[in-house]
Formats: sequence, structure tokens, C-alpha cells
Amino acid sequence: MTSSKRLAIVAGAGPGLGDALLTRFAQGGYHAVGYSRRQRTSDPSIETRNLDLTDSDEVRAVTRELTDRHGPPAIVVHNPARLVRGPLLETPIAQFEEAWRSMALSAAILAHNVIPAMVQAGGGAFIVSGATASLRGGAKFSAFASAKFALRGLTQSLAREFQSSGIHVSHVILDGIIDSDASRVLHGRDPNTMMKPADIAQAYWQLAHQPSSAWTHELDLRPMSESF
Amino acid sequence: MTSSKRLAIVAGAGPGLGDALLTRFAQGGYHAVGYSRRQRTSDPSIETRNLDLTDSDEVRAVTRELTDRHGPPAIVVHNPARLVRGPLLETPIAQFEEAWRSMALSAAILAHNVIPAMVQAGGGAFIVSGATASLRGGAKFSAFASAKFALRGLTQSLAREFQSSGIHVSHVILDGIIDSDASRVLHGRDPNTMMKPADIAQAYWQLAHQPSSAWTHELDLRPMSESF
Amino acid sequence: MTSSKRLAIVAGAGPGLGDALLTRFAQGGYHAVGYSRRQRTSDPSIETRNLDLTDSDEVRAVTRELTDRHGPPAIVVHNPARLVRGPLLETPIAQFEEAWRSMALSAAILAHNVIPAMVQAGGGAFIVSGATASLRGGAKFSAFASAKFALRGLTQSLAREFQSSGIHVSHVILDGIIDSDASRVLHGRDPNTMMKPADIAQAYWQLAHQPSSAWTHELDLRPMSESF
Amino acid sequence: MTSSKRLAIVAGAGPGLGDALLTRFAQGGYHAVGYSRRQRTSDPSIETRNLDLTDSDEVRAVTRELTDRHGPPAIVVHNPARLVRGPLLETPIAQFEEAWRSMALSAAILAHNVIPAMVQAGGGAFIVSGATASLRGGAKFSAFASAKFALRGLTQSLAREFQSSGIHVSHVILDGIIDSDASRVLHGRDPNTMMKPADIAQAYWQLAHQPSSAWTHELDLRPMSESF
Repeated sequence: MTSSKRLAIVAGAGPGLGDALLTRFAQGGYHAVGYSRRQRTSDPSIETRNLDLTDSDEVRAVTRELTDRHGPPAIVVHNPARLVRGPLLETPIAQFEEAWRSMALSAAILAHNVIPAMVQAGGGAFIVSGATASLRGGAKFSAFASAKFALRGLTQSLAREFQSSGIHVSHVILDGIIDSDASRVLHGRDPNTMMKPADIAQAYWQLAHQPSSAWTHELDLRPMSESF
Repeated sequence: MTSSKRLAIVAGAGPGLGDALLTRFAQGGYHAVGYSRRQRTSDPSIETRNLDLTDSDEVRAVTRELTDRHGPPAIVVHNPARLVRGPLLETPIAQFEEAWRSMALSAAILAHNVIPAMVQAGGGAFIVSGATASLRGGAKFSAFASAKFALRGLTQSLAREFQSSGIHVSHVILDGIIDSDASRVLHGRDPNTMMKPADIAQAYWQLAHQPSSAWTHELDLRPMSESF
Repeated sequence: MTSSKRLAIVAGAGPGLGDALLTRFAQGGYHAVGYSRRQRTSDPSIETRNLDLTDSDEVRAVTRELTDRHGPPAIVVHNPARLVRGPLLETPIAQFEEAWRSMALSAAILAHNVIPAMVQAGGGAFIVSGATASLRGGAKFSAFASAKFALRGLTQSLAREFQSSGIHVSHVILDGIIDSDASRVLHGRDPNTMMKPADIAQAYWQLAHQPSSAWTHELDLRPMSESF
Repeated sequence: MTSSKRLAIVAGAGPGLGDALLTRFAQGGYHAVGYSRRQRTSDPSIETRNLDLTDSDEVRAVTRELTDRHGPPAIVVHNPARLVRGPLLETPIAQFEEAWRSMALSAAILAHNVIPAMVQAGGGAFIVSGATASLRGGAKFSAFASAKFALRGLTQSLAREFQSSGIHVSHVILDGIIDSDASRVLHGRDPNTMMKPADIAQAYWQLAHQPSSAWTHELDLRPMSESF
């Protein structure tokens, strides 16, 4: 027995963008579920599942259970972010692996576990959060850029493989710092120069609801104040 | 004395996308004006101005008159499309020039004539229609691709120069055939494999109304059935 | 009656790179001809033709005469450079046109006049000089970037149309300042931070002589000291 | 005590391109060493080391020993290729990991182990073999494209971090099938439509010897017969 609300999954649901996405989808009438390491309490239309996105078994078990209850997901967002920065020689090989597992491998695992049901249901949106480093490998970003490039390549392949099955796969280049309590402290920046999570979430909402005659595969988002 | 409705200009307002954009902006409460070579009758909230987009004097005169009446434009779309296709040696040099004048030079002229007032007003959206050929110069598209590349380079420069003045400059890659009576005849394609003008117009509408914390400079749009 | 030396044409043969290309080709055994506005005296294996590269008739007449004497060109380089820089509103529309005519239209004219003979001869290299602005439209580079983008789009189309006829079409991104008397004065830079014309010419030489199993369409060249 | 010949390392030295690179470097006067899983006998100026490129300890031990004997490497090529192809749902997660470890992580490990000595020596070339899939994630190439994108992002970061230390980092897009006994059988193609390993090796040789005033970071190589 499935609930009447359609399912929206946000994998990588930290404070900031993750929360804003869950809120936007819940407000829009979806049953919103965050895959996250931390607990999120307040809103009853938002559910949190604590799991390790790099563990196929965990992702499979939770996704199956949700799909059994709510039907195949209508929207899936891949959003884990783990900024790694440093000179090559101060970046242990283990950190390359960790960056790639958390940001790229986790997307392959997620796709494996949601796409079959979405294809069977005839459609859905799969949206991936990229970064400036998805397009440009800057100095001292070797681990991060490498992982974000990997994620972009994977996302393009998914788009080309599953577009004809009705799955709308998108890659969003987030080119700026996302406003949050943490980023205000960390970057010491004027909040007006940062991206507002709710504004980004609205762009994801629009992407997820584009009609199939005009789908976007890739777009960039940046604050007016961010040079590029 | 300015009217209460804000001004939206669509330069290159043929049937198909041009009309759909004017309709969308008019429905959204703008005073919509098409710069076009043909007359367009029906809707009182839509005005048509016959002018040659490659003639600076004409564009200046009409734009000044509109701005005097309606205030600086809130939205400007550059949308002239003139598909030129053929082997290099069957493409006269004059056709290279015509393609470039109609699709690239006209954008510089438009920018010259709308941007100062928009900057003074503190903002506005300037949206440019690109094509598959904006990113890839295919065989037998030398004149068209060259003009569309030129337009993209110009658009990027405008974005970087005027972003800090509050002008949101976007470039849309239209990667597919736009459904219209003409394209149904010309391409003989199933309408379901073509982009619906109203769907594209909705994407432009969303672009034009993105909050300044999350602006898109470039996105692609294609029908689900279009491989890429 | 054709001479025994094969013909190499450098269109846009100013001091700096143009001269270095002519010298390299002459040293390599070609009859090197510069299409240029200025006279160049010294070397008997280098010929200068004063002509306007944007004038089809002039380019046709000179090229025919050369081809009659030397056979179809084995190497053709398109190299006119005319840096235009300035805010949009201080860039007259005429300057957009001039930049495009001198850097993009001239390439279409050149291609029209050399490619038929090269195709008939079964091969040859057509190399185009691009710039940083061929890939990125920077603020205050609207006319220059637009022209250089146009040139890149055209070059891609030529590559795809004529590759199967044995014409090797390449686009070189020159990402740095080329050392010359003029640039030392103009930029006031340490010569060691600039590109040496002879080094660039050597890269063009290598491109022009790549075997047909491993052709490069696009490469970048920059000095070690130039960040990117 | 170091030998008089400078060291060139080819990591990923299979038959085909790996062998051709070793041969080219040996002919050019280098002491050429292949890091490979298989033995290679004949030529005394070519040495083979059997090691696992994804094992930091093995790479470190062998590289140190070589550096002790021959001095820091002048040329290092990263060349492991492991084509993985298949629909997403038939590509086990382990295969994503294997593709990434063999093609991307191995490059980070190699860089860690050769770059410090190269920086200390004041220079050298680090060349990475990319593929069509480094730029485009095609349908059914999700694991391969993801790994090749990762490698490209890493390579860009290395270029930007180490260029000012005199390390010339390049990424070569191999856009075609490389001729070998295996590929003739596997693809059943006319050898004339495939890239000759010796021709590719010559392009790498040229890259490795570009003067520092004109360095290429990225170029493509494809046979004349390969459309793109």
C-alpha cells in the first residue's frame, strides 16, 4: 500500500542546501526523505534516514523500504559535498579515495538503487549537485576536482542512457559558496555574496518539473557577486 | 509618463518561440513588445515593431520610444534565428556575413541600446537564444556555427561585464527542433519529438526571474527524444 | 610550370608570429608566402603579398597566381590578430564588424580560395590561430571574443567537413602574450614570461606534419609562467 | 651513482601504445622503464618493472630505486587503459571502483611518487593518456567515463599546481582506436582507420620536449578517418 504523496529523496542532506531541498519538496506536496548522517527533527512531512551513502547494502535496504511504502521516487537528488583542499603532496592517497567514494561512487550506488523503479514507473528526475571544480581542476584541488569530474562524467552517461526511458538527469554547477551558519564562520563572508539555499532549491524544483519537451541537462548557478 | 506594466522586449519575434515568449511575458504582467519583420495582430498586451535588427538607428529609435513610455526594459530576449546550412563551397561569403549580422551583430546592437537604461535602473534580464551549433561546429554548418559561436562569445562577455551592475545575462542552448507549422512541414517530424514553444518560454520566464543569489548563465534545453 | 618547392601560405603575417612561421616553413624547404599589409624584405625563400584579407577578389587573384606557379598549398595558416579591448559601451558597432571581418570572415574567404585546390591535391594542413578569448568571453572583450569564437566555430566546421578529404584543420589556442618589440613596449613584461614566436612556429610545423593516423584538431600553447 | 641516460617512465605499458612509447624514448636516448604487469624482453635500453600501479608501496619502492640509479625522471607517462563498457545496471559497483582505481587513483599515486624529485630537479614532463570519454560521458560508458573524467580533473589540478615549478603536465585525448593485434581482432577494423602507436608516441615525444615558452596542456589525437 503506497501513500498518496510521491517520494522525493535527497541523498546528502546536510544543513544548508540539503535541508532547503527537503523543505521545498515537502512544501510542494512530496514525501521528502533525507539520506543523512545526522538527525533532523521538526517537520513531519520530512523523514531522515541515517545511512552511509557509500554502502550499497544500506542504500538498497532503505530505498526498497521507502519504495514499498511510497512507490518509486519521483525526484532523487545526489548532494553529498565534502570539500577537500590542499597541495597534492599534503593530500594522502586515502583522501583521494574518500573524496571519490563520498561524491562519485555514492552516485553510482544511488543510481543503481533508484533508477530501475523509476524506469518501470516511466519517469522521474535525477539531479546531481556539481561545483566549480566539476569543470575546472584548480591548483590544490586535485582530490576534490577529480571526484567532481568523475561525478559529472557519470551523470552525463546516466543522462544519455536513461533519457529515452523518461528519466530526466541533470547536473547543476554550484559556482559559489552556499550560505549557512558554518560557511559564515568558515569563509567570513558577507551573506549577500553567498547563494541562498532556498533559491538553489527553487532551481532544483524547476528542473525536476520541466516538461519533457524542454529538459535541461546542465546549468550553472552563482550569486550575482561571484565572478566567473 | 510610464505605464505601470514593466517592459519585456523580444528581438526576433517570429512564429514559434518568439510568439510564445511574447505570450508568456504578457500573461505574466509585462508589456511585451516583439521586434519583428512581420505583423502580429491579436493580443492588445503584445505590441509588434517592424524593424531591422541589424540597423542601429532603427533599434535605437524604437527602443528609446518604448523606454520613454514604459521605463527601461526588465527583460530583453535576443532570438533571431536564421538557419543556414550547406557545404562551405556552396555557401557564398555574403551568406557568412548575413548569418553573422542577423544573429551576432544584432545582439551587440541590442545590448548597446538596452543595457545603459537597464544598468541605470539597477537590473534586468538579457537572455540570448543559442543552438546546438553554439557549442559544436558541425560539417556543413560553417556559416551558422560561426555566427552562433560569435553570439555565445559576446554573451559571455556581456555577462562578465554587467553582472555586477545587476544585469542577469543568460545563454540558452536550444538543442532540438522547435515545433511550429513550418518545422512540421520542413522536417516532417513527429511533433512529440520537437520542443514546444510554450515549454521553452516557461524556461526563459524562470531564468528572467531567478533571484540574484542563484543566477544561471547557461543552460541547455532539449526534448526527451533528442540524443546528445 | 610549378616550382619544386611546396607552397606554404601565412595569411596575417605581421612581425612576431607571422615572420617566425614564414621563417620556419622556408627553413623546412617550403616556398613561404606571407599575405600581409607590410613589406618584408630579406629572405629570398620568403615572398610577401600585400593584400586585404577581407577582400575576396584580392585573395582569389593572388592565391590563383601562386597556385599556378607552385601548385596547391601544402600548408595554410590563418593568423591575423587584431586585439580589441574595451567596455561594451565604448566599443562602436563598427568595431565589432571590423574585428569579425579581419579575424573570422577572412578565414572563410581564405578557406574558399585554398581548400578546393588542396582537396584536389588530396591533402594539406589548414591551421588557425586562436586565443584565450576563443574559449572564454571575458569582460571588456566583447568584440574580440565574439570574433575569436566565430573563428573557432568556423574552424571546427571546416575540420569536420574536410577531414575525410585529407585536409588537416587545426585550431591553436595561443594563451599568452607573444614576445615582440611591440609587446615588450606595450605590456612592459619580462620577455621570459612571453611566448617566443619561434617556439610557437615549431608547434605549428609539427601540427602541419602529423601523420594522418594521429591528427590534432585543437591544442593550447602557453608559457610556463602563464596561469590558466 | 646515476647513469648518464635520463629516466623516462611509462606507467601502464601494455602492447600497443605502451611499447611504442618505450621504444620512442629509448631511441631518443632515455633509459626507458615500463611499469607493467607483463614481461617485455628484447631491447636492453628498455626495462620492465612488474608492479601494481594502485599499490602506493610498490610504486614508491620501484620509483625510489630507479631514481637512485638514474636520477629524477625527465618524462613520466600515465597510460593504463582498461575499457569498461556496459549498461549501468550490468556494471557492478565493484567495476566502478576498479575502473577508477586503475585509471585515476593510479595517477595520483604516480604523481605523489615522481613529482617531488622532478620539482627538486627543476623540471620534467608528466603526460596523461585520456580518451574520448574524458570529455563526454556516453551512454553505457558510466564507469569508464567517470574514471576518465576523474583523471582529467586530477591532471588539470596537477598542471596548475606544478607548472610554476617547471613541471609540464599534459593531457592527451586519444579519440580513436589504437591499432594492435588485439584491437584488430576485437574491433575487426581496417588498420588504416586506427591510430598507429608509433605516431601517437611521436606526439608524446614532441609534447615532452616543448620549450617552456610554449607548453601544451591538452590536445586531441584522432585518425583522419574518425569523425568527431
